Amino acid sequence: MPGSTFGNQFKIMTWGESHGKGIGVVIDGCPAGLTLCEEDIQKMLDRRKPGQSKFSTPRKEEDLVEILSGVFEGRTTGTPIALMVHNKTQRSGDYHEIASYYRPGHADFTFDMKYGFRDYRGGGRSSGRETVARVAAGAVAGKILEELGVTVRAYTESIGPVIIDTEKPNFSVMNENPLYMPDMEAARKASAYLEECMKACDSSGGIIACIVHGLPVGIGETVFEKLDARLAHAVMSIGAVKGFEIGDGFRAAYAKGSENNDAFRMKDGKPVKKTNHSGGVLGGMSDGSEIFFKAAIKATPSIASVQETVNRNGEEIEISIHGRHDPVIVPRAVVVVESMAAITLLDALLENMSSRMDRIRQFYKRD
Amino acid sequence: MPGSTFGNQFKIMTWGESHGKGIGVVIDGCPAGLTLCEEDIQKMLDRRKPGQSKFSTPRKEEDLVEILSGVFEGRTTGTPIALMVHNKTQRSGDYHEIASYYRPGHADFTFDMKYGFRDYRGGGRSSGRETVARVAAGAVAGKILEELGVTVRAYTESIGPVIIDTEKPNFSVMNENPLYMPDMEAARKASAYLEECMKACDSSGGIIACIVHGLPVGIGETVFEKLDARLAHAVMSIGAVKGFEIGDGFRAAYAKGSENNDAFRMKDGKPVKKTNHSGGVLGGMSDGSEIFFKAAIKATPSIASVQETVNRNGEEIEISIHGRHDPVIVPRAVVVVESMAAITLLDALLENMSSRMDRIRQFYKRD
Amino acid sequence: MPGSTFGNQFKIMTWGESHGKGIGVVIDGCPAGLTLCEEDIQKMLDRRKPGQSKFSTPRKEEDLVEILSGVFEGRTTGTPIALMVHNKTQRSGDYHEIASYYRPGHADFTFDMKYGFRDYRGGGRSSGRETVARVAAGAVAGKILEELGVTVRAYTESIGPVIIDTEKPNFSVMNENPLYMPDMEAARKASAYLEECMKACDSSGGIIACIVHGLPVGIGETVFEKLDARLAHAVMSIGAVKGFEIGDGFRAAYAKGSENNDAFRMKDGKPVKKTNHSGGVLGGMSDGSEIFFKAAIKATPSIASVQETVNRNGEEIEISIHGRHDPVIVPRAVVVVESMAAITLLDALLENMSSRMDRIRQFYKRD
Amino acid sequence: MPGSTFGNQFKIMTWGESHGKGIGVVIDGCPAGLTLCEEDIQKMLDRRKPGQSKFSTPRKEEDLVEILSGVFEGRTTGTPIALMVHNKTQRSGDYHEIASYYRPGHADFTFDMKYGFRDYRGGGRSSGRETVARVAAGAVAGKILEELGVTVRAYTESIGPVIIDTEKPNFSVMNENPLYMPDMEAARKASAYLEECMKACDSSGGIIACIVHGLPVGIGETVFEKLDARLAHAVMSIGAVKGFEIGDGFRAAYAKGSENNDAFRMKDGKPVKKTNHSGGVLGGMSDGSEIFFKAAIKATPSIASVQETVNRNGEEIEISIHGRHDPVIVPRAVVVVESMAAITLLDALLENMSSRMDRIRQFYKRD
Repeated sequence: MPGSTFGNQFKIMTWGESHGKGIGVVIDGCPAGLTLCEEDIQKMLDRRKPGQSKFSTPRKEEDLVEILSGVFEGRTTGTPIALMVHNKTQRSGDYHEIASYYRPGHADFTFDMKYGFRDYRGGGRSSGRETVARVAAGAVAGKILEELGVTVRAYTESIGPVIIDTEKPNFSVMNENPLYMPDMEAARKASAYLEECMKACDSSGGIIACIVHGLPVGIGETVFEKLDARLAHAVMSIGAVKGFEIGDGFRAAYAKGSENNDAFRMKDGKPVKKTNHSGGVLGGMSDGSEIFFKAAIKATPSIASVQETVNRNGEEIEISIHGRHDPVIVPRAVVVVESMAAITLLDALLENMSSRMDRIRQFYKRD
Repeated sequence: MPGSTFGNQFKIMTWGESHGKGIGVVIDGCPAGLTLCEEDIQKMLDRRKPGQSKFSTPRKEEDLVEILSGVFEGRTTGTPIALMVHNKTQRSGDYHEIASYYRPGHADFTFDMKYGFRDYRGGGRSSGRETVARVAAGAVAGKILEELGVTVRAYTESIGPVIIDTEKPNFSVMNENPLYMPDMEAARKASAYLEECMKACDSSGGIIACIVHGLPVGIGETVFEKLDARLAHAVMSIGAVKGFEIGDGFRAAYAKGSENNDAFRMKDGKPVKKTNHSGGVLGGMSDGSEIFFKAAIKATPSIASVQETVNRNGEEIEISIHGRHDPVIVPRAVVVVESMAAITLLDALLENMSSRMDRIRQFYKRD
Repeated sequence: MPGSTFGNQFKIMTWGESHGKGIGVVIDGCPAGLTLCEEDIQKMLDRRKPGQSKFSTPRKEEDLVEILSGVFEGRTTGTPIALMVHNKTQRSGDYHEIASYYRPGHADFTFDMKYGFRDYRGGGRSSGRETVARVAAGAVAGKILEELGVTVRAYTESIGPVIIDTEKPNFSVMNENPLYMPDMEAARKASAYLEECMKACDSSGGIIACIVHGLPVGIGETVFEKLDARLAHAVMSIGAVKGFEIGDGFRAAYAKGSENNDAFRMKDGKPVKKTNHSGGVLGGMSDGSEIFFKAAIKATPSIASVQETVNRNGEEIEISIHGRHDPVIVPRAVVVVESMAAITLLDALLENMSSRMDRIRQFYKRD
Repeated sequence: MPGSTFGNQFKIMTWGESHGKGIGVVIDGCPAGLTLCEEDIQKMLDRRKPGQSKFSTPRKEEDLVEILSGVFEGRTTGTPIALMVHNKTQRSGDYHEIASYYRPGHADFTFDMKYGFRDYRGGGRSSGRETVARVAAGAVAGKILEELGVTVRAYTESIGPVIIDTEKPNFSVMNENPLYMPDMEAARKASAYLEECMKACDSSGGIIACIVHGLPVGIGETVFEKLDARLAHAVMSIGAVKGFEIGDGFRAAYAKGSENNDAFRMKDGKPVKKTNHSGGVLGGMSDGSEIFFKAAIKATPSIASVQETVNRNGEEIEISIHGRHDPVIVPRAVVVVESMAAITLLDALLENMSSRMDRIRQFYKRD
């Protein structure tokens, strides 16, 4: 029944509800000797902070992270790292009404059915605030990856019908628009689209893409623990994600073998793929090309339009959800996708260390 | 580093290579008292058997399953169930040539990089034959689900560009065509398309869809162990799967909240959703609607067309892969998808039993 | 590499160092609907509190537990329960000297070798304070067991050479002496023995026994997950525990089969054992008798006597450890043993729910 | 509910019953590149073979192991290694009678209570034959340890009241007596004792000790995954084991701190312990001394003396168990203890590889 634990060698357990005392994560299995301070984590958390643009809720969450254990004199000690963000703005009153009915597109109904009741304040454990813990853990994983030469970068590919120029993304402008789109023209159009949605008391979904550079070849395990299967698990576990693709994804289903196969050529004395339809994974193991995957994010279910639903007494009612809700969560989810990817990749990297006798012998060799 | 283990309460470990002695699986955690015989498993294995049509390899694999343990006097005993299928046609000679180079779209290169060498006979552990073990375990999981009133049905939605009538699939004809398409007209067109592919020494991909009926509400865990995340992991771990969608999937990324939300109404005294854009999962837990998901399958990478690649000596070469290869693996993968879904759903059902104190008290109550 | 995670269905992850910000635990998999408040946990923590007698350190640790998540309106919600105890008395200065050398009987040397350095303040993660988290989680597990009719009671069997009357323990006096001995005469003698130890700048070990009543028959799994094997793991993972016995333990090695076998007789219409040499476990499953096991606790390694050791510069030195150290940790470890037993037994109880088809069918039956 | 899976990075799943088709194990996570053939495993299996002396059952089990997967051209490939031993002498008839009653000291009763029925043939899954799989997997683990300079040696310390000279064990004679005692005089006395037991239709227990040399410092994890806790789990999971001690074990409970602490001195430029009361583990991590532990084995419960028990109809009866049963299982269990130790130590060694950033950087460094 445990559902808030993830990873094998770099294992995390997250906790906390939207309107409880805070959100936290414990990392069990972080290697010793990593330089780590709260600022390393804070800068990632700030990327998911609401209130940064007109398209995210005006709530002022400070989301200041505190390292509670596992770091001594600026370095990780190899023991569990507990991270916590206190909840500052707990206005439970706002949410009391939703206790009585089931919001469409939310987990209210399933929570009640599974557990018999629920912490209805702001979605409780199903709130988007849960992702604070993912980002905090992801910041630690990402810092380790960085030291190993691996970079993970997620960005917004589309908002509703507005898609970036996928042939030529311009990452230099990605942080210049609040939608994290690597295409200023698309960002402008997406903004206009979102304003329409807001006027119509509606919301929008979108697609997040992610690119990983520098991963050594051979990371990921065959059969059930394929790297792409684990990434799919990690990314699909983020609330609101409805689809996952590696490489060409669903387009691969329409292509022929001659189109989809990536030929190998030699470059700098090493085999490299000429194309990357596979998205950097062959047989579940990294193949030396960029890892490339996408996640489909559904529209925020909390909308002010009138919706039909039922209440706990079994009565059919109509509701209209007001309050502080993002018309789109895609931009804030970018860093969450990046974080889950970092956690997954690091875990696979650490596990891979015991794959070969020659390397194990080398590791433990004595003089 | 273990990669061939899957599941928590219903845990499986698979083994075996394409041209080794056989393929097998051990199931640790199968409940006691299930009536089980080899025929229960054989009938599922027969669905993935090659040589059933002109679109699958003419190899005659008998794939007879043997129950080696865990069943006594026709019932499971609660101890591990070992299942094995002997490999009959081991013509390693056919494959010796591929030892020297890296086939595009295959795991040859990544295996060599990860492990230093590989069992090159027929793809070794990365062969499609590995799925025999998934189907054998899935047959057991499926039989248990059936007794609990849960049915899992996968089918072919598309082959290359040929898509079934998704509004009105006709499941009664699904087994009347070798492509497992619930639409005879589409099956005819897809056959014609595949014949073209074969003439062109090429291959095709496609999409498999899966529907689950009868799953109780509340199955799956919040946060990382969401039902859809686990299904994604399970399905993406099948070789050749490049994408996964739950419910509307990527289409949800383009829809507005007002379009994507599923309203609740009362029916027979219970809340039910009017639509099912969510694919039967809300907040990672089953919501009482049909579970509906899709998997994108890439085209068979083994094609007779000339392809560029490199060999182990670092020389650029051209190859053309001959031998017994399916021009499309989608039809044979249908039962594999169904099997992985069954294993995942059963595991989640068993884990869910400890979710509520009232039910645990009831379970262990004494008189 | 993760080492601070325990359990399968009732999974805990602990964190915190002796002189860090606090000690905590997250419980992932606690069933929903359990009435739980901080006082339920506090009363167990108070049992391991130091400063309760002259034989435990005079440090005044308040050890107030805070529930950070997972409880709503007085009941567990099924989501992770985070518990935290802030460290109040962090006088790191006391410990600065020990940074430079390796205390005999402590983990200073092994920490340095494994991780390259260590948080030397008060033993860091290897401090006895780590057990605060075990007791907090154990309090939750114990409360659930209690509701299921299972009671777990640990007590002090011996301190140094002083052993209780093992034939007739008197549990009514157990809480009337600070050593938790169910024998006032033995407690008096043990007190005298400890005073001698203290005068001699020395310390003492002892034995803790534990009895479990009310566990249903059949809990625990065959082969590797035997109930006694899991209890051994749980109890041996407590710092300072050097031995574990179930039932007659090492005495069984000297007995003959005719002496050690427990005959079955009928009682109230059920098979019951006439004796309990087995300690309540047969073939790794509970057999309906009391579960009975023992743990050997070594003497506190921090003693004021002069000891030989080496420092980080590789110099041989002599040290004498002063400060606030218990001359015996056995009494304070009693509740820790009880807690680990409770966690282990609950986990096994929850896992056992999926052992039989008839019970699963009953659980999920629909009308 | 799975109970036949063990280990994290070197994970094994075992299967098979006494009188089923065979006994097997799958190893998931064995590093690639290990030279391995059936003879490597066979020689270990031969050590547990019955019929080698008058104190073990005269059954002629050949116990020939077959490697079914994971080895190619004499080397492990990194994929699962399936090992199987066919059961040759399946005389189920011998055992039919025991189907109806519960043998004292056996798991008959608990199996029936847990699962509703049982495979009664020869103890089914609870038979000592189950250990064939442990030894097969242990042989692989032991071979890897050997290549890393780690040796594991178990031996018989006592049979009933006959104890070896524990101060001066003579390992050169250990294999010269069928009891695996490193003391010929003790072996003679133990033989005489066992003959008495047999005459009296009775059986004997004993103690097995195990010494590990060459393990690097720092293996094992702090808190729950302490090396000694994992060894305890591994060893206590062997049927008939009733107690576990590391180092001085229960004697440590009687010693003072000044007696039990191991002083550090310098030797060859490294800190070493002067004594080894700790048994080679400090704080759950190997400390560079020999790992030393003991296991208490109960007397064989199958004895020809008359015993009281009940049958499945709830009638009190008297039974006398005839057939081929060892009067002592200690000698045959020696290799089983050694195997479980090897599996546990290897798993801990592999997991330890990700403990430090400096070593991870070194492992993955690029030029």
